[in-house]
Amino acid sequence: MQKDQNFKEKKIAGEKVFSGQLLQVYKDEVELPSGKKSFREFIKHPGASVVIPYLGNNQIMLVNQFRYPVNKTMLELPAGKIDPGESYKATMIRELFEETGLKAETMIQLAPIHTCIGYSNELLYLFWASGLEKTDHNIDTDEIISLNPIDISDALELIYTGEISDGKTIVGIFWADKILKDKKLQLRFNINI
Amino acid sequence: MQKDQNFKEKKIAGEKVFSGQLLQVYKDEVELPSGKKSFREFIKHPGASVVIPYLGNNQIMLVNQFRYPVNKTMLELPAGKIDPGESYKATMIRELFEETGLKAETMIQLAPIHTCIGYSNELLYLFWASGLEKTDHNIDTDEIISLNPIDISDALELIYTGEISDGKTIVGIFWADKILKDKKLQLRFNINI
Repeated sequence: MQKDQNFKEKKIAGEKVFSGQLLQVYKDEVELPSGKKSFREFIKHPGASVVIPYLGNNQIMLVNQFRYPVNKTMLELPAGKIDPGESYKATMIRELFEETGLKAETMIQLAPIHTCIGYSNELLYLFWASGLEKTDHNIDTDEIISLNPIDISDALELIYTGEISDGKTIVGIFWADKILKDKKLQLRFNINI
Repeated sequence: MQKDQNFKEKKIAGEKVFSGQLLQVYKDEVELPSGKKSFREFIKHPGASVVIPYLGNNQIMLVNQFRYPVNKTMLELPAGKIDPGESYKATMIRELFEETGLKAETMIQLAPIHTCIGYSNELLYLFWASGLEKTDHNIDTDEIISLNPIDISDALELIYTGEISDGKTIVGIFWADKILKDKKLQLRFNINI
């Protein structure tokens, strides 16, 4: 890979064009490497965490959630935005608990995912969680519709049919499949199956 | 999965809060299933296509592109936004040509990817392209920095180290790995390796 430095788009000017509760939208004028000028519109996002809750026996926990922007109920891995001052790991623990009522004994950070680099700086971190225990936490039914334990092979099938279409969830399922089948990857990420 | 109908968030009111060249940002007031009210801020996106250019011998073509929102040069599958009136397939053909100078003999639509369902309706379609031929097209160096043919096993390794972090690219690499290893999946998607 070549060095970023020579290819950077330099910021000439910038303004915040929308400040919402969720979205902070910016419009910058930039100079391209060729000297040409252009505009970049993008969102500043606090980051988020997504977790693979491993239930044992090749099963993971997915949740059903209605997503207004796509007007659809989506089958997803538990995930959520970082609250001010929170770490990726703390976010992951909180979201796992809020969305599934589960607490994990083992939590492993896997890898970063940039969700939509064309117009957002959102950076997600993917975690593995196992040694899961149920609590008596009541799931917020305004957010989560149902819990769906699913076999990895069935989850892969739902990716192939397009029924699972959420990007972070597809990434997490493929990762889980690799981890479950590859002892070297388990060792590398310090995961005991 | 339960029916969407009972869990839909109903739109009460809505306004467009930013109309840019790239981003169309909306803020809707919604009624949650519980009767509570809330706001949803989101982006309307025209959709996009992403392509796995299969070079043969377990190699795919990635491109290096500087991405302003994340202020980084990213290693990605060729991809791009739908132009007005364009189909997903036509977008994929155009972007493959513009970003790599390649033309494909075989093009197969694989599956949909919603990139960031928390705040965008963006829907990407993933394609497989093979039977690739070089043309004398000059790559736009304001957009693409370099072409990077890479072995699937090396691409997987870059996912595990976090060096490949672009969501759509991670999904495409995992898909390519599955297709290359699974004859049944090749038959199912009518792909000849």
